[in-house]
Amino acid sequence: MKSVVTIGGGTGQFTLLSGLKKYPVRLTAIVSMADDGGSTGVLRDELGVLPPGDIRQCLVALSESDMIMRELFNYRYEQGGLKGHNFGNIFLSTLEKITGSFEEAVRVAGMVLATRGEVIPVTTRSVSLVGGQALCGENVINSAELKDKTGLRLEPEAYANPKAVMAIEQADCLVIGPGNFYCSIVPNLLVKGIPEAIGRSKAVLVYNCNLMNKAGHTDGYTVADYIDEVERFIGKNRVNFVTFNNRLPEKDLLERYGEEGKSLVPVASADEDFADVPYRPLPADLISPGAFVQKPGDAVRRTLIRHDPDVLAALIIQNCLGGV
Amino acid sequence: MKSVVTIGGGTGQFTLLSGLKKYPVRLTAIVSMADDGGSTGVLRDELGVLPPGDIRQCLVALSESDMIMRELFNYRYEQGGLKGHNFGNIFLSTLEKITGSFEEAVRVAGMVLATRGEVIPVTTRSVSLVGGQALCGENVINSAELKDKTGLRLEPEAYANPKAVMAIEQADCLVIGPGNFYCSIVPNLLVKGIPEAIGRSKAVLVYNCNLMNKAGHTDGYTVADYIDEVERFIGKNRVNFVTFNNRLPEKDLLERYGEEGKSLVPVASADEDFADVPYRPLPADLISPGAFVQKPGDAVRRTLIRHDPDVLAALIIQNCLGGV
Repeated sequence: MKSVVTIGGGTGQFTLLSGLKKYPVRLTAIVSMADDGGSTGVLRDELGVLPPGDIRQCLVALSESDMIMRELFNYRYEQGGLKGHNFGNIFLSTLEKITGSFEEAVRVAGMVLATRGEVIPVTTRSVSLVGGQALCGENVINSAELKDKTGLRLEPEAYANPKAVMAIEQADCLVIGPGNFYCSIVPNLLVKGIPEAIGRSKAVLVYNCNLMNKAGHTDGYTVADYIDEVERFIGKNRVNFVTFNNRLPEKDLLERYGEEGKSLVPVASADEDFADVPYRPLPADLISPGAFVQKPGDAVRRTLIRHDPDVLAALIIQNCLGGV
Repeated sequence: MKSVVTIGGGTGQFTLLSGLKKYPVRLTAIVSMADDGGSTGVLRDELGVLPPGDIRQCLVALSESDMIMRELFNYRYEQGGLKGHNFGNIFLSTLEKITGSFEEAVRVAGMVLATRGEVIPVTTRSVSLVGGQALCGENVINSAELKDKTGLRLEPEAYANPKAVMAIEQADCLVIGPGNFYCSIVPNLLVKGIPEAIGRSKAVLVYNCNLMNKAGHTDGYTVADYIDEVERFIGKNRVNFVTFNNRLPEKDLLERYGEEGKSLVPVASADEDFADVPYRPLPADLISPGAFVQKPGDAVRRTLIRHDPDVLAALIIQNCLGGV
């Protein structure tokens, strides 16, 4: 069975894994540890645990247990003292308190959720994402204007989880993105040992470009700009495949986004824009037909233009792995 | 396989089930729904759920999953916004919110914990224990002087869960107690339909007398007094076996209890005190050799003189079921 390793965090990785898990591949999710917002931030502060939020999303995506358990792990409280908390985050943090090990907590949660595949924190050190203009914390940076991209770093310096390094080295296919670029994707690539492992790995590397640009972070970015930024961390000529969207979404959806300062990543043409590139462009209609509905109690405003998990997974499996 | 149905709540039922689960019998725990203190009380108030605390203790007692899961369900938070809460209570209450059914929540939690046996709430109506002197709530009554025992009632009037009635009717052996007499045992017998089902059932009935009297509730009670009080609810001549302790515990333990106003149920002699009774007395050295240690974060002060689960279970299985 071929081994596919995804690198990311947040909703983007949830979507990607939801699609990939339908194929007979060995899945490993390497997850950012920079999250410090919402329920995750409160648990980090109060219980002194590692951030559970992104890990939980991956576990739920890979879960083969019934709907109730998956709903349970994603449940957000709307009232009382638990308001804003998320059950799955509490579950992981409490297991970490009991076992004294975040990785052991993730393993037990994986058993309870009957996950197909493994979820690995990119580092097991407690770190914060720090911006170039003295912006401290992923949650702060997420809402701020990020002018100096090259100043982005983790504090204290983070070293790769050896399990993440081994998974990358042994993979047949590495998949980076989609996801919040500077807050979910890059925090993985800032971990010492991760770019090096990606360099050593014989795996083909797929970069899934985002559908939308984020105000203050990636305004006006083209597909090529995203790839340039990824290459700043993993080096030139390492990306083998790039998936990107080639359909304009409905006008009213775009207008709603415009109000939030977000805009579509310009729809590129494979023939014209990628004539001479060292990677294979994979354009497709990637936008999910079902616009996501905001759930009451959701602390974070959810994107409505989303990748279709099945289309994205099929694109990767058929083109980058030569089928399975 | 013979069917044993326990009726109670709290730590007493936990102890009893921990012992009984080692035997090849079909176990069903019928659990009081009057609890409204601590974490359970907060969840009832804030989320509008049924009381999870006593149910959780039974599920953990019957769990055959590994130690980590059992520790997880009993974990109490010592700091932050979750302080005083108990993970297992949060688990059950969240499942109830998702499924809309407390019984379904108990079923799913039972699967996660790999419980051997079934746990059934005595009623699925939200009720409060009310004392004769305008004392309202189990938690209030637990700490108060309970002068008028006959005034104790549930509000609103509670009707038996049909599953509890069926379990009682089909049992080979019914076991009442040990446990907090007026706050954990009696609230089951106050539910309409439970005494009637006990009356109809062909099962032998065992009453496990408490080891200690509770200040303000059962001061000076003898074994016979407890039986009189049980019979007030289920009628005369229904009790077939009575287990009680016949060993004086160590002096320093008794002194510690004396400070809290608690005292030992007088050690009775089967020959003298139970010469002419319509039930079979089962005296034994029932006190657990390992005095219980108070855990940090425990909201409730834990009894140190406890039933030995293995001695109690063996006494019941060998004498009341004729072995298994």
